[in-house]
Amino acid sequence: MPPSVRAAAPVAGKQVAGVYRYKVGDIEVTVVTDGVNRFKLPDGFVSNVAKSEVEAALAAAHVEGDMFYNPYNPLVVNTGSKLVLIDTGVGEGAFNQSKGQIGQLLTNLAAAGYDPKAFDAVIISHYHGDHVNGLLRADNALTFPNAEILVPAKEHGYWMDDGEMARAPKGRIEGLFKNNRRIFSGEVLKRLRTYEWDKEVVPGITAVGTPGHSPGHTSHIIASGSGKVYVQADVTHVPFLFVRNPGWHALYDQDAAMAETTRRKVYDMLAAEKMMVQGFHYPFPSHAYVEKSGNGYRETMALWNPAI
Amino acid sequence: MPPSVRAAAPVAGKQVAGVYRYKVGDIEVTVVTDGVNRFKLPDGFVSNVAKSEVEAALAAAHVEGDMFYNPYNPLVVNTGSKLVLIDTGVGEGAFNQSKGQIGQLLTNLAAAGYDPKAFDAVIISHYHGDHVNGLLRADNALTFPNAEILVPAKEHGYWMDDGEMARAPKGRIEGLFKNNRRIFSGEVLKRLRTYEWDKEVVPGITAVGTPGHSPGHTSHIIASGSGKVYVQADVTHVPFLFVRNPGWHALYDQDAAMAETTRRKVYDMLAAEKMMVQGFHYPFPSHAYVEKSGNGYRETMALWNPAI
Repeated sequence: MPPSVRAAAPVAGKQVAGVYRYKVGDIEVTVVTDGVNRFKLPDGFVSNVAKSEVEAALAAAHVEGDMFYNPYNPLVVNTGSKLVLIDTGVGEGAFNQSKGQIGQLLTNLAAAGYDPKAFDAVIISHYHGDHVNGLLRADNALTFPNAEILVPAKEHGYWMDDGEMARAPKGRIEGLFKNNRRIFSGEVLKRLRTYEWDKEVVPGITAVGTPGHSPGHTSHIIASGSGKVYVQADVTHVPFLFVRNPGWHALYDQDAAMAETTRRKVYDMLAAEKMMVQGFHYPFPSHAYVEKSGNGYRETMALWNPAI
Repeated sequence: MPPSVRAAAPVAGKQVAGVYRYKVGDIEVTVVTDGVNRFKLPDGFVSNVAKSEVEAALAAAHVEGDMFYNPYNPLVVNTGSKLVLIDTGVGEGAFNQSKGQIGQLLTNLAAAGYDPKAFDAVIISHYHGDHVNGLLRADNALTFPNAEILVPAKEHGYWMDDGEMARAPKGRIEGLFKNNRRIFSGEVLKRLRTYEWDKEVVPGITAVGTPGHSPGHTSHIIASGSGKVYVQADVTHVPFLFVRNPGWHALYDQDAAMAETTRRKVYDMLAAEKMMVQGFHYPFPSHAYVEKSGNGYRETMALWNPAI
């Protein structure tokens, strides 16, 4: 038996594209991660609980290295007649944190075989930067040049309302109103169509009002045959904090009390109807079962399916 | 705003390759799934527990459709000087079940950028078909023609011992002894080198004796710098049954009492030392934390890392 004489194989040096596919009836759903943002847990991240309690929950979830773990997971939905993206990730230019770990959507879409030009529609859940900034490239060109941009009428109305902006606290004006007015202008506005709650946005995808996180925050139910999945957007932020503790109020929730009411209502329904959830801020592949547990709920990630 | 006029995008129709990468110190580890075998839960699958209890545990783990879920996850280890595969999956010809769902290793290695010819070594944990059959192609050619085949001395000795074979029950002779003598012959034998417990198999990968599942069943610790992962092979079969219930005896454990002793010893150590585990029969990506919980243990899958 001769000793091995192979040249050392080069290390790959990077993660594979985070892409995961499943069927909902006849509809093909593909999770395409935009990555994970890591940052020091800010003070007041959960406004009604001591920071030490939040840190303990993060440690229990094995979030490592004293850094918060915030995944972003847009969704590709091929209904058979339309190719749709739900939410866009942070885009190329808007976030400076976690370089290389976020803003991966276009790279991962390419790895999954999707050309941005092929999308018929982009559905937006709500007007926060990690959901809308990917509508534009770094040079402000449309990322999905052939797509209609479908937005919740109530959400669009709120952020475009000058009176609301005038009444808003400074942080929301600087952090959200101005960004939304930058994004939702020019070419984006030309391709924009508003949609209403409790109606189909495109065939197979129905909008459900889930306000609180933002005034017009919207979830979506994808349904085909007997298949159904609840695309929750930010009904909860990371599950290891806010599914387990639905009474915790996240910094990002504009109306925290309303967000909690919405969260409990949605999760009671998911648990009762045994409907699976797709969570934008769930760890990739972000597709999970939900059950009642203790004073809250417990999510169980779907078992990886090597064939669909 | 014109209505969309895009042609319908073709559905992808298949899952992406199950590949996941992480670092252990300077060593690059890549999980490459061979797939998931699905079959009706056999009677006696857990020999010391009523079938109804097993079914309840499967339901609690959301194993769907009254079919058992048995994942196979070989591991690529690039130590920087050697490209190594630990265990091979079921190969191309040996299993007829779950067509398309298993025997994916070569396809997924290719998707991950690995040429079978580039491997310097294949390390075998034990001589069960889902770990060794992938050493040969359907035409009996070597799958990894340039690799040394590194096998536990004790395991090899047992299965090649004519006296052991003569004393073995018929099922083990037909199901394992004959298959092992088919695989470990000819070209495989020419490239074979046995290794001993508690020694490095290749630099950075140390063999640890974990007998019970089979007489020479072996686990491996990959270590580099302060990084360490415990590659457990079949110390437990699927975690949702046997990590949660270490006293349950799996059909596949040759010496079930010894396997249980080994399992408890390994898992006590993993929990105490907070060492992560890589489990061949864990759901992909099969990389997890272990903690004590109730009368057993609880595994928590690692959070997907979009960058390494």
